[in-house]
Amino acid sequence: MNFEHLLQQVAFIHEIDKVKYIQRKTRLFNSDRNENDAEHSWHLAVMAMVLAGHSNEPVDTLKVIKMLLIHDVVEIDAGDVFLYDTIISHTNTEAERKAAERIFGLLPTEQAEEFTAIWEEFEAGETAEAKFARAMDRLEPLLQNVSNKGGSWREHHVTYDKVVQKKSIIQQGSQTLWDFAKALIDESVEKGILKKEE
Amino acid sequence: MNFEHLLQQVAFIHEIDKVKYIQRKTRLFNSDRNENDAEHSWHLAVMAMVLAGHSNEPVDTLKVIKMLLIHDVVEIDAGDVFLYDTIISHTNTEAERKAAERIFGLLPTEQAEEFTAIWEEFEAGETAEAKFARAMDRLEPLLQNVSNKGGSWREHHVTYDKVVQKKSIIQQGSQTLWDFAKALIDESVEKGILKKEE
Repeated sequence: MNFEHLLQQVAFIHEIDKVKYIQRKTRLFNSDRNENDAEHSWHLAVMAMVLAGHSNEPVDTLKVIKMLLIHDVVEIDAGDVFLYDTIISHTNTEAERKAAERIFGLLPTEQAEEFTAIWEEFEAGETAEAKFARAMDRLEPLLQNVSNKGGSWREHHVTYDKVVQKKSIIQQGSQTLWDFAKALIDESVEKGILKKEE
Repeated sequence: MNFEHLLQQVAFIHEIDKVKYIQRKTRLFNSDRNENDAEHSWHLAVMAMVLAGHSNEPVDTLKVIKMLLIHDVVEIDAGDVFLYDTIISHTNTEAERKAAERIFGLLPTEQAEEFTAIWEEFEAGETAEAKFARAMDRLEPLLQNVSNKGGSWREHHVTYDKVVQKKSIIQQGSQTLWDFAKALIDESVEKGILKKEE
């Protein structure tokens, strides 16, 4: 690689610092402090290291981790959309595509293409790696909300059916983790921290 | 893996949330907000994805990223020690070893051993992967301090010789990145944001 490439890479490294300022709706475990996208991405990547053995299919762990590390970089331009938002679609919006083009486009061409391809694969959710990575992305806030006595579910009046509908995607990546998640969701209703109806 | 293993893994995932509360001395790029260890670890892991091609020797990128994702987990118990601290040694303290034992020990035995081995390899700094991972750990705060007009160097009266001494370890992982880093350090003196003498 040449020196110009290095300068492009450093420009990208500077730019993605902004991920640390993007606030999510969910809060840290047992906490009232919102999580930011950098903390979230770090936690998902470590979860993938820990939980990869529960994947339905064998996965390339490096690819899963790369997906999780960069999946929210597009939110620098496009912003964080709440999973249960009823107006804005959570994924594949035009704003996110433009953001990917601009931000990954800071990198040398070959890397820009590699990062864009990894991000698109995650968004499409069709490969074993993307399915498992998306399972991590759905599991972490579930664990957080359970630890926070309902957390963002309570705060935003999200009901049981919606949670099951959105979280059941975990099953595509890992039946074991979905069985565990479903039990946590059902227990949350019993504990009164998740409502069946609004 | 059995259900008991999954519960151990989830306990670990909960525990490491505390990494998000550990404040570092360095600040975000162009910012007066301190970085925390989760944000730092995320940034280093992405840097490794981007910069691995500059390593002196070919590296197993997955291992480098795993090292960077978990290298600061021990600080949950042992705390963050400033790189330029003159009283407490920055690495390999007894407190960090005990922390590794307790925190990685939350995982199922086989994983606990794997994580401990990865952390020890990073700390020892002898393999190509550890050298490159450590180069990332030294490069990020350098970029931050340059962007912050001296940042934690100015705040803690760190001089040129100390910076060169501590940062020259980058060379072991990547001559290219060290050449770049050394030029940034020299420029910092010219700009008056790093002093030759106190």
